[in-house]
Amino acid sequence: MSLIIGIDPGSRLTGYGIIQKEGSKLTFIDAGTIRTETPTMPERLKRIFEGISSIVDFYQPTEAAIEQVFMSNNPDSALKLGQARGAAMTAVVVKNLSVAEYTARQIKLSVVGYGAAEKEQVQMMVMRLLNLSITPQADAADALATAICHAHAASSNNKMLMLQSTGMSRGRGRWRLPG
Amino acid sequence: MSLIIGIDPGSRLTGYGIIQKEGSKLTFIDAGTIRTETPTMPERLKRIFEGISSIVDFYQPTEAAIEQVFMSNNPDSALKLGQARGAAMTAVVVKNLSVAEYTARQIKLSVVGYGAAEKEQVQMMVMRLLNLSITPQADAADALATAICHAHAASSNNKMLMLQSTGMSRGRGRWRLPG
Repeated sequence: MSLIIGIDPGSRLTGYGIIQKEGSKLTFIDAGTIRTETPTMPERLKRIFEGISSIVDFYQPTEAAIEQVFMSNNPDSALKLGQARGAAMTAVVVKNLSVAEYTARQIKLSVVGYGAAEKEQVQMMVMRLLNLSITPQADAADALATAICHAHAASSNNKMLMLQSTGMSRGRGRWRLPG
Repeated sequence: MSLIIGIDPGSRLTGYGIIQKEGSKLTFIDAGTIRTETPTMPERLKRIFEGISSIVDFYQPTEAAIEQVFMSNNPDSALKLGQARGAAMTAVVVKNLSVAEYTARQIKLSVVGYGAAEKEQVQMMVMRLLNLSITPQADAADALATAICHAHAASSNNKMLMLQSTGMSRGRGRWRLPG
């Protein structure tokens, strides 16, 4: 059994989602959004770090996954997103959890089966896969999708290892594994 | 009396410098470089965070200043620098220290008196202002320069407040104050 935290970092809104994985069964545990609409960037980073820290302290996840932020053409936006991502990742790694990184395309492929899926499709599939009756907020849904992607990748990874250990081989799997 | 930590963040090398300020007298306390040449970015962020944290814990600075990273045209570099900066700033703000930000131009103007000064000029002036007999490593020198810039800005700020409180006014000072 593993407990996975998924994180979708942003300088204004950072989504998080916690799911439990038992074999192939995924169970929703918690999800939410850390709002950081304060005037200064240092204060925002503090809120992100402390928000993720308190969630990690409370749930004690065994695995962590983070969405690779959108690589905009604007270096200023990339710097801001980078800072938010730095604060969120730091909160996880200082607890000695390793962090897997997935691109938006990998996450969509894993959750919807289609790398260019719309945001609404991701939200709907997250609800279906986790048996949710309420639509989660967009950033929380993205964080849950990241956690689901990690759960799928881990399963696929285990299967590959099993196949390798029995001398069998297979082609490129459906899930792209993290670097 | 105040103890200022200056930080020059980078994803491979993060410089730090500690100076003491008593009136207009500046004294060198410590400076160094946190090396983060590990294969993964999460591990790098952890080292930056833990490195700065341990320095803050040890010296208990009362003020912090950070160099605004160079805004490259490359969003990928900006993201990496942003992450390093996020980890470094987080280490400071979680100790409830506020962080002043200065551009490279502001720092050069403050330390050398010329906003487009060369790196070597900054290093030389840092040595002169702090009475150092050994040239500090480049990133450590930049961090010390950031701390000196903050010390000068604070003095200038105090003078302005004093002038304001006595009903006097003055033009743009030599030091540009942080936003």
